[in-house]
Amino acid sequence: MTTHSKGYAAFKKDGDLAPFEFDRREPKPNDIVIDIAYCGICHSDLHVVEDSMGMTRFPVVPGHEVVGHVTHVGPGVTRFKVGDRAAVGCYTDSCRVCEPCKSDMQHMCVEGLTGTFGGFERDGKQQSWGGFSKNYVIDQDYAYRIPDNLDLAAAAPLLCAGITTYSPLRKWGVGPGKKVGIVGLGGLGHMAVKLAAAMGADVTVFTGSKGKLEDAKKLGANTVILSSDPDQMNGQMGRFDFILDTVSAPHDIQSYVNCLKPMATLCLLGIDPAALSFSPIGVVFGQKCIAGSLIGGVNETQQMLDFCGEKNITADIELLPAQAINDAFHRLSKNDVKYRFVLDMAAL
Amino acid sequence: MTTHSKGYAAFKKDGDLAPFEFDRREPKPNDIVIDIAYCGICHSDLHVVEDSMGMTRFPVVPGHEVVGHVTHVGPGVTRFKVGDRAAVGCYTDSCRVCEPCKSDMQHMCVEGLTGTFGGFERDGKQQSWGGFSKNYVIDQDYAYRIPDNLDLAAAAPLLCAGITTYSPLRKWGVGPGKKVGIVGLGGLGHMAVKLAAAMGADVTVFTGSKGKLEDAKKLGANTVILSSDPDQMNGQMGRFDFILDTVSAPHDIQSYVNCLKPMATLCLLGIDPAALSFSPIGVVFGQKCIAGSLIGGVNETQQMLDFCGEKNITADIELLPAQAINDAFHRLSKNDVKYRFVLDMAAL
Repeated sequence: MTTHSKGYAAFKKDGDLAPFEFDRREPKPNDIVIDIAYCGICHSDLHVVEDSMGMTRFPVVPGHEVVGHVTHVGPGVTRFKVGDRAAVGCYTDSCRVCEPCKSDMQHMCVEGLTGTFGGFERDGKQQSWGGFSKNYVIDQDYAYRIPDNLDLAAAAPLLCAGITTYSPLRKWGVGPGKKVGIVGLGGLGHMAVKLAAAMGADVTVFTGSKGKLEDAKKLGANTVILSSDPDQMNGQMGRFDFILDTVSAPHDIQSYVNCLKPMATLCLLGIDPAALSFSPIGVVFGQKCIAGSLIGGVNETQQMLDFCGEKNITADIELLPAQAINDAFHRLSKNDVKYRFVLDMAAL
Repeated sequence: MTTHSKGYAAFKKDGDLAPFEFDRREPKPNDIVIDIAYCGICHSDLHVVEDSMGMTRFPVVPGHEVVGHVTHVGPGVTRFKVGDRAAVGCYTDSCRVCEPCKSDMQHMCVEGLTGTFGGFERDGKQQSWGGFSKNYVIDQDYAYRIPDNLDLAAAAPLLCAGITTYSPLRKWGVGPGKKVGIVGLGGLGHMAVKLAAAMGADVTVFTGSKGKLEDAKKLGANTVILSSDPDQMNGQMGRFDFILDTVSAPHDIQSYVNCLKPMATLCLLGIDPAALSFSPIGVVFGQKCIAGSLIGGVNETQQMLDFCGEKNITADIELLPAQAINDAFHRLSKNDVKYRFVLDMAAL
């Protein structure tokens, strides 16, 4: 028997979201059912609703920063019991046998991952509906445990903004003695600052907003640079072991390449379609690297959550009732949020 | 007593080279003196003569692909004896104590390397003069042995074109089972094809010249793609583990980013000042990397020479007498060379 659910769907490009009822799959032996308590709103939810890539299948129920409590466990479930806190992130399955899947890079699955919403499950038939809804049915192997000490609502954004920033910080060896730059102080950037500081790095935030200078320090930055001030920028040239660029808009990356030490990496997270440009001179002479990173693997995501539990890290959120979903999307489109909206789905 | 020498110098921007006499340093206990037999002409020699970066100190004696025979060894020299074949590459010293120097990355020396020409030795006083000349005085620790089986003239370009391509091919794990793209078939590109093929990789050459399609196969390429043909380019999307881009001119790198597999790297070697641009979409979603590489370390350079000895690899050269130096530079500026000019300096 399928699992009845309801939530908020967008029905056309740029349209408001409205109440929507739908069915999820019948729970399989390895599945759990999560009663959704909270769901964070990520910029990529906005991209999907705006159909900015021209790839959205409407109607769509977005939402991929999903936390709640387990209400059902299949007979094969060993990692969760009814009543446990549990979470769903950006994907809910993958082929499990390709090289990336076997290397805890399920998000790079050769066959393609199963997105938390907007596509189909691996049977190619059952539609996948996101977390702005009442419940979720997911294989225990792709669900996460939320440490008990973390506020559940504020932990929701860890499932996307958290892992998206944690993974590259770990991959490029951020830790004590490393000088790390974080470009942009939005949903991703504010998580990156907290995580990099907790990893013991010397953290510098680059922001274009004078209004965020104080915030950056409160979040854990040792230094804050106003990126629109050429003197401040020039003072940072050649100083960084790693720079994580969270900006999802056209911007100048050359100045950040210049801020790297030789042999260091600038890692991009933003998926704005506008081309970025750089001079090969500094990249070649400095043996520098411009890389991209996308979310993270299943085990890595759990490691990130456990690390956040240990360091008591959650997102800075503005909690709104589910019914405020359209206001939240409108404000997000104007970057009017510090630093992540989370919707209270229990109010559904 | 200083070491008298003579060679060819450029005296002003874009000017022809002309005979020039000068003194090198008095050999120190650890020094060898090399009687130069051959010197290759690299595109960066042309950049210096053209002063395209605005940094050339005139007069300048270029030349950094230097091979010859040892005519003097200081009392501390253990690695060479009089009569041995020996070589000088792109640099002749470095600080020796910084982290890069201690990690065989002398070319990335924090204090800066001592260029083979156009600057000063580490005392900051003695000018450094390049290899388009009669002899060279160099510390044995920065000189190289040329395997006996290699043609000496054709080995000269290994000192720059060889190590510049060998180092990134090794760094990114090129070998059996790897699909490698080489962009551009000039001095660097033709070495890259030979080296990657000798390492056991499946090699594809991307060239804009129909006239080079056959050459590429003869050099060892398994596949040759005409980069101006969109159909051929589209057929290569997502297929490469590593692409080495040797083009030193403005060009489209996006199509090569598209040709990378997920998590693969495009490495740039060209130092043309024009900006390159790419879309962050593919880089982020594919967790791809755009990197730069510059020559290589001292031990790595010797390893490259030993590898070339083992595989019997040298450059394809056109050998000219030293007196033809200006003709060679003029032809190089029009890319009229297959694939490297080497000057016979014994004719001096």
